[in-house]
Amino acid sequence: MTSTIRIIGIDPGLRRCGWGIIETFGNSLRFVASGTVTSDGDMDLASRLCQLHDGLAEVVHTYKPDEAAVEQTFVNKDAVATLKLGQARGIAMLVPARAGLPVAEYAPNAVKKSVIGVGHGEKQQIHMMLKILMPKAEFKGNDAADALAIAICHAHNRGGDRMRKVLASA
Amino acid sequence: MTSTIRIIGIDPGLRRCGWGIIETFGNSLRFVASGTVTSDGDMDLASRLCQLHDGLAEVVHTYKPDEAAVEQTFVNKDAVATLKLGQARGIAMLVPARAGLPVAEYAPNAVKKSVIGVGHGEKQQIHMMLKILMPKAEFKGNDAADALAIAICHAHNRGGDRMRKVLASA
Repeated sequence: MTSTIRIIGIDPGLRRCGWGIIETFGNSLRFVASGTVTSDGDMDLASRLCQLHDGLAEVVHTYKPDEAAVEQTFVNKDAVATLKLGQARGIAMLVPARAGLPVAEYAPNAVKKSVIGVGHGEKQQIHMMLKILMPKAEFKGNDAADALAIAICHAHNRGGDRMRKVLASA
Repeated sequence: MTSTIRIIGIDPGLRRCGWGIIETFGNSLRFVASGTVTSDGDMDLASRLCQLHDGLAEVVHTYKPDEAAVEQTFVNKDAVATLKLGQARGIAMLVPARAGLPVAEYAPNAVKKSVIGVGHGEKQQIHMMLKILMPKAEFKGNDAADALAIAICHAHNRGGDRMRKVLASA
Protein backbone atom coordinates (compact mmCIF):
# COMPACT_ATOMS: atom_id res chain seq x y z
CA MET A 1 0.00 0.00 0.00
CA THR A 2 1.34 3.43 -0.94
CA SER A 3 0.49 6.38 1.26
CA THR A 4 1.46 10.04 1.26
CA ILE A 5 4.50 10.72 3.41
CA ARG A 6 5.40 14.24 4.50
CA ILE A 7 9.14 14.83 4.85
CA ILE A 8 11.09 17.67 6.44
CA GLY A 9 14.62 18.23 5.14
CA ILE A 10 16.97 20.30 7.30
CA ASP A 11 20.23 21.97 6.25
CA PRO A 12 21.82 22.74 9.63
CA GLY A 13 23.86 25.84 10.43
CA LEU A 14 24.33 28.01 13.51
CA ARG A 15 23.54 31.29 11.76
CA ARG A 16 21.07 29.97 9.19
CA CYS A 17 19.21 26.67 9.32
CA GLY A 18 17.29 25.88 6.12
CA TRP A 19 14.15 23.74 6.16
CA GLY A 20 11.95 22.34 3.41
CA ILE A 21 8.76 20.28 3.55
CA ILE A 22 7.65 18.01 0.71
CA GLU A 23 5.17 15.21 0.25
CA THR A 24 5.93 11.99 -1.58
CA PHE A 25 3.32 9.57 -2.92
CA GLY A 26 4.74 6.66 -4.86
CA ASN A 27 7.11 8.32 -7.34
CA SER A 28 5.52 11.78 -7.23
CA LEU A 29 6.79 14.75 -5.21
CA ARG A 30 4.87 17.78 -4.02
CA PHE A 31 6.24 21.00 -2.55
CA VAL A 32 4.63 22.06 0.73
CA ALA A 33 6.75 24.85 2.25
CA SER A 34 10.31 26.03 2.86
CA GLY A 35 12.14 28.64 4.88
CA THR A 36 15.13 29.51 7.02
CA VAL A 37 15.42 29.71 10.80
CA THR A 38 18.09 32.19 11.85
CA SER A 39 19.94 32.92 15.09
CA ASP A 40 21.17 36.31 16.24
CA GLY A 41 24.99 36.46 15.99
CA ASP A 42 25.12 39.12 18.73
CA MET A 43 23.60 36.78 21.32
CA ASP A 44 25.43 34.16 23.37
CA LEU A 45 25.69 30.61 22.02
CA ALA A 46 23.12 29.05 24.37
CA SER A 47 20.50 31.67 23.41
CA ARG A 48 21.24 31.12 19.71
CA LEU A 49 20.73 27.36 20.11
CA CYS A 50 17.40 28.14 21.81
CA GLN A 51 16.39 30.32 18.85
CA LEU A 52 17.16 27.49 16.41
CA HIS A 53 15.32 25.01 18.64
CA ASP A 54 12.20 27.16 18.96
CA GLY A 55 12.14 28.05 15.25
CA LEU A 56 12.47 24.43 14.10
CA ALA A 57 10.01 23.21 16.75
CA GLU A 58 7.45 25.70 15.39
CA VAL A 59 7.97 24.43 11.81
CA VAL A 60 7.55 20.79 12.95
CA HIS A 61 4.47 21.74 14.97
CA THR A 62 2.93 23.68 12.05
CA TYR A 63 3.59 21.23 9.20
CA LYS A 64 3.56 17.94 11.14
CA PRO A 65 5.98 15.97 8.95
CA ASP A 66 6.14 12.15 9.24
CA GLU A 67 9.89 11.76 8.71
CA ALA A 68 12.99 13.95 8.86
CA ALA A 69 16.28 14.07 6.94
CA VAL A 70 19.35 16.08 7.94
CA GLU A 71 22.50 16.72 5.91
CA GLN A 72 25.68 15.11 7.21
CA THR A 73 27.78 18.19 6.62
CA PHE A 74 31.47 18.41 7.35
CA VAL A 75 33.47 21.56 7.64
CA ASN A 76 37.07 21.02 6.77
CA LYS A 77 38.04 24.62 7.52
CA ASP A 78 38.89 24.30 11.20
CA ALA A 79 37.84 22.65 14.47
CA VAL A 80 36.06 25.79 15.73
CA ALA A 81 33.79 25.92 12.65
CA THR A 82 33.13 22.17 12.85
CA LEU A 83 32.23 22.43 16.54
CA LYS A 84 29.82 25.31 15.78
CA LEU A 85 28.17 23.35 13.00
CA GLY A 86 27.96 20.29 15.25
CA GLN A 87 26.12 22.28 17.89
CA ALA A 88 23.54 23.51 15.38
CA ARG A 89 23.29 20.02 13.91
CA GLY A 90 22.60 18.55 17.35
CA ILE A 91 19.56 20.84 17.63
CA ALA A 92 18.46 20.09 14.04
CA MET A 93 18.38 16.36 14.84
CA LEU A 94 16.96 16.70 18.35
CA VAL A 95 13.84 18.66 17.42
CA PRO A 96 12.30 16.12 14.98
CA ALA A 97 13.49 13.17 17.11
CA ARG A 98 11.73 14.57 20.20
CA ALA A 99 8.58 14.97 18.09
CA GLY A 100 8.74 11.22 17.44
CA LEU A 101 9.98 11.39 13.82
CA PRO A 102 12.58 8.99 12.46
CA VAL A 103 15.63 11.09 11.48
CA ALA A 104 17.76 9.99 8.50
CA GLU A 105 21.19 11.41 7.64
CA TYR A 106 22.58 11.91 4.14
CA ALA A 107 26.03 12.92 2.98
CA PRO A 108 26.16 16.06 0.77
CA ASN A 109 27.19 14.10 -2.34
CA ALA A 110 24.26 11.69 -1.86
CA VAL A 111 21.92 14.71 -1.73
CA LYS A 112 23.39 16.21 -4.92
CA LYS A 113 23.28 12.85 -6.69
CA SER A 114 19.62 12.48 -5.77
CA VAL A 115 18.66 15.86 -7.20
CA ILE A 116 21.03 16.56 -10.10
CA GLY A 117 22.14 13.00 -10.89
CA VAL A 118 25.81 13.46 -10.00
CA GLY A 119 27.63 13.80 -6.65
CA HIS A 120 28.89 17.32 -7.34
CA GLY A 121 27.39 20.45 -8.82
CA GLU A 122 26.73 24.13 -8.44
CA LYS A 123 24.04 25.66 -6.24
CA GLN A 124 22.41 26.99 -9.41
CA GLN A 125 21.98 23.46 -10.79
CA ILE A 126 20.21 22.41 -7.59
CA HIS A 127 17.85 25.39 -7.85
CA MET A 128 17.04 24.52 -11.48
CA MET A 129 16.45 20.84 -10.73
CA LEU A 130 14.19 21.67 -7.78
CA LYS A 131 12.02 23.70 -10.16
CA ILE A 132 11.93 20.80 -12.64
CA LEU A 133 11.15 18.16 -9.99
CA MET A 134 8.61 20.36 -8.17
CA PRO A 135 7.40 23.21 -10.45
CA LYS A 136 5.52 24.85 -7.58
CA ALA A 137 8.56 24.89 -5.28
CA GLU A 138 9.30 28.23 -3.63
CA PHE A 139 12.53 28.93 -1.79
CA LYS A 140 14.48 31.98 -0.82
CA GLY A 141 18.22 31.44 -0.69
CA ASN A 142 20.55 28.43 -0.74
CA ASP A 143 19.71 27.11 2.73
CA ALA A 144 16.02 26.53 1.98
CA ALA A 145 16.91 25.09 -1.46
CA ASP A 146 19.45 22.71 0.10
CA ALA A 147 16.86 21.63 2.69
CA LEU A 148 14.38 20.80 -0.08
CA ALA A 149 17.10 18.81 -1.88
CA ILE A 150 17.73 16.84 1.35
CA ALA A 151 14.00 16.08 1.64
CA ILE A 152 13.96 14.86 -2.00
CA CYS A 153 17.03 12.70 -1.33
CA HIS A 154 15.15 11.07 1.54
CA ALA A 155 12.03 10.58 -0.62
CA HIS A 156 14.21 8.69 -3.12
CA ASN A 157 16.01 6.59 -0.54
CA ARG A 158 13.53 5.95 2.25
CA GLY A 159 11.93 2.94 0.57
CA GLY A 160 15.27 1.17 0.47
CA ASP A 161 16.09 2.18 4.02
CA ARG A 162 12.76 0.91 5.24
CA MET A 163 13.21 -2.32 3.31
CA ARG A 164 16.69 -2.83 4.77
CA LYS A 165 15.33 -2.23 8.28
CA VAL A 166 12.56 -4.75 7.66
CA LEU A 167 15.11 -7.25 6.37
CA ALA A 168 17.43 -6.58 9.29
CA SER A 169 14.69 -7.18 11.83
CA ALA A 170 13.39 -10.35 10.11
CA MET B 1 24.04 41.07 49.54
CA THR B 2 25.40 37.57 49.20
CA SER B 3 22.99 34.74 48.45
CA THR B 4 23.38 31.03 47.82
CA ILE B 5 23.72 30.22 44.13
CA ARG B 6 23.26 26.69 42.85
CA ILE B 7 25.42 25.87 39.82
CA ILE B 8 25.32 22.97 37.37
CA GLY B 9 28.59 22.15 35.59
CA ILE B 10 28.38 20.00 32.46
CA ASP B 11 31.20 18.09 30.73
CA PRO B 12 29.66 17.33 27.34
CA GLY B 13 30.18 14.14 25.36
CA LEU B 14 28.03 12.03 23.04
CA ARG B 15 28.64 8.77 24.88
CA ARG B 16 29.04 10.16 28.39
CA CYS B 17 27.93 13.58 29.61
CA GLY B 18 29.13 14.38 33.14
CA TRP B 19 27.16 16.72 35.42
CA GLY B 20 27.87 18.18 38.84
CA ILE B 21 25.80 20.43 41.09
CA ILE B 22 27.36 22.67 43.73
CA GLU B 23 26.26 25.62 45.82
CA THR B 24 28.33 28.72 46.38
CA PHE B 25 27.79 31.24 49.14
CA GLY B 26 30.36 34.00 49.24
CA ASN B 27 33.66 32.11 49.17
CA SER B 28 32.32 28.78 50.38
CA LEU B 29 31.44 25.80 48.20
CA ARG B 30 29.09 22.93 48.95
CA PHE B 31 28.70 19.68 47.03
CA VAL B 32 25.10 18.81 46.10
CA ALA B 33 25.17 15.94 43.60
CA SER B 34 26.97 14.57 40.55
CA GLY B 35 26.49 11.91 37.91
CA THR B 36 26.79 10.92 34.29
CA VAL B 37 24.13 10.82 31.58
CA THR B 38 24.94 8.21 28.94
CA SER B 39 23.66 7.46 25.45
CA ASP B 40 23.39 4.03 23.86
CA GLY B 41 26.08 3.65 21.17
CA ASP B 42 23.95 1.06 19.32
CA MET B 43 21.14 3.55 18.70
CA ASP B 44 20.97 6.12 15.90
CA LEU B 45 22.37 9.59 16.49
CA ALA B 46 19.01 11.38 16.82
CA SER B 47 17.85 8.90 19.50
CA ARG B 48 21.16 9.30 21.37
CA LEU B 49 20.75 13.10 21.38
CA CYS B 50 17.23 12.58 22.78
CA GLN B 51 18.68 10.38 25.55
CA LEU B 52 21.19 13.09 26.50
CA HIS B 53 18.47 15.75 26.36
CA ASP B 54 16.04 13.79 28.54
CA GLY B 55 18.72 12.81 31.06
CA LEU B 56 20.04 16.36 31.47
CA ALA B 57 16.50 17.81 31.55
CA GLU B 58 15.69 15.45 34.44
CA VAL B 59 18.81 16.58 36.34
CA VAL B 60 17.91 20.27 35.83
CA HIS B 61 14.31 19.59 36.86
CA THR B 62 15.36 17.65 39.98
CA TYR B 63 18.10 19.97 41.30
CA LYS B 64 16.83 23.32 39.96
CA PRO B 65 20.19 25.07 39.52
CA ASP B 66 20.33 28.85 39.10
CA GLU B 67 23.21 29.01 36.63
CA ALA B 68 24.99 26.63 34.25
CA ALA B 69 28.58 26.25 33.03
CA VAL B 70 29.72 24.07 30.12
CA GLU B 71 33.27 23.18 29.12
CA GLN B 72 34.49 24.63 25.83
CA THR B 73 36.12 21.41 24.73
CA PHE B 74 37.98 20.97 21.48
CA VAL B 75 38.86 17.70 19.88
CA ASN B 76 41.90 17.99 17.70
CA LYS B 77 41.75 14.36 16.60
CA ASP B 78 39.57 14.73 13.52
CA ALA B 79 36.53 16.54 12.10
CA VAL B 80 34.21 13.56 12.71
CA ALA B 81 35.03 13.48 16.45
CA THR B 82 34.69 17.28 16.69
CA LEU B 83 31.30 17.18 14.94
CA LYS B 84 30.11 14.43 17.34
CA LEU B 85 31.23 16.42 20.36
CA GLY B 86 29.60 19.55 18.95
CA GLN B 87 26.27 17.76 18.63
CA ALA B 88 26.40 16.62 22.27
CA ARG B 89 27.55 20.07 23.33
CA GLY B 90 24.61 21.68 21.54
CA ILE B 91 22.26 19.60 23.71
CA ALA B 92 24.28 20.32 26.87
CA MET B 93 23.86 24.07 26.30
CA LEU B 94 20.26 23.93 25.07
CA VAL B 95 18.80 22.13 28.10
CA PRO B 96 19.79 24.69 30.78
CA ALA B 97 19.15 27.62 28.40
CA ARG B 98 15.59 26.42 27.72
CA ALA B 99 15.08 26.16 31.50
CA GLY B 100 15.92 29.88 31.69
CA LEU B 101 19.44 29.51 33.16
CA PRO B 102 22.33 31.72 32.03
CA VAL B 103 24.94 29.40 30.45
CA ALA B 104 28.63 30.27 30.80
CA GLU B 105 31.44 28.62 28.83
CA TYR B 106 34.95 27.93 30.10
CA ALA B 107 38.04 26.66 28.29
CA PRO B 108 39.57 23.46 29.74
CA ASN B 109 42.71 25.26 30.94
CA ALA B 110 40.58 27.86 32.77
CA VAL B 111 38.76 25.00 34.53
CA LYS B 112 42.03 23.32 35.56
CA LYS B 113 43.50 26.61 36.71
CA SER B 114 40.43 27.25 38.85
CA VAL B 115 40.67 23.90 40.61
CA ILE B 116 44.35 22.96 40.76
CA GLY B 117 45.93 26.38 40.36
CA VAL B 118 47.59 25.75 37.00
CA GLY B 119 46.25 25.39 33.46
CA HIS B 120 47.38 21.79 33.05
CA GLY B 121 47.33 18.72 35.24
CA GLU B 122 46.38 15.10 35.58
CA LYS B 123 42.85 13.81 36.18
CA GLN B 124 44.09 12.48 39.54
CA GLN B 125 45.07 15.99 40.68
CA ILE B 126 41.56 17.25 39.86
CA HIS B 127 40.02 14.41 41.89
CA MET B 128 42.28 15.22 44.89
CA MET B 129 41.56 18.96 44.74
CA LEU B 130 37.81 18.34 44.52
CA LYS B 131 38.05 16.40 47.78
CA ILE B 132 40.03 19.22 49.40
CA LEU B 133 37.69 21.98 48.16
CA MET B 134 34.53 19.99 48.93
CA PRO B 135 35.26 17.16 51.41
CA LYS B 136 31.76 15.73 51.00
CA ALA B 137 32.02 15.57 47.20
CA GLU B 138 31.06 12.26 45.64
CA PHE B 139 31.74 11.41 42.02
CA LYS B 140 32.09 8.29 39.98
CA GLY B 141 34.47 8.57 37.05
CA ASN B 142 36.23 11.42 35.26
CA ASP B 143 33.16 12.91 33.58
CA ALA B 144 31.35 13.69 36.84
CA ALA B 145 34.61 14.97 38.39
CA ASP B 146 35.25 17.24 35.40
CA ALA B 147 31.68 18.55 35.60
CA LEU B 148 32.19 19.45 39.29
CA ALA B 149 35.45 21.21 38.35
CA ILE B 150 33.56 23.23 35.70
CA ALA B 151 30.95 24.22 38.29
CA ILE B 152 33.73 25.34 40.69
CA CYS B 153 35.38 27.32 37.89
CA HIS B 154 32.09 29.16 37.37
CA ALA B 155 31.70 29.77 41.12
CA HIS B 156 35.14 31.44 41.10
CA ASN B 157 34.50 33.49 37.96
CA ARG B 158 30.82 34.38 38.00
CA GLY B 159 31.28 37.40 40.29
CA GLY B 160 33.63 38.97 37.79
CA ASP B 161 31.37 38.13 34.89
CA ARG B 162 28.39 39.60 36.64
CA MET B 163 30.36 42.71 37.54
CA ARG B 164 31.48 43.16 33.95
CA LYS B 165 27.91 42.79 32.75
CA VAL B 166 26.75 45.37 35.28
CA LEU B 167 29.51 47.73 34.17
CA ALA B 168 28.72 47.10 30.51
CA SER B 169 25.05 47.89 30.96
CA ALA B 170 25.68 51.01 33.10
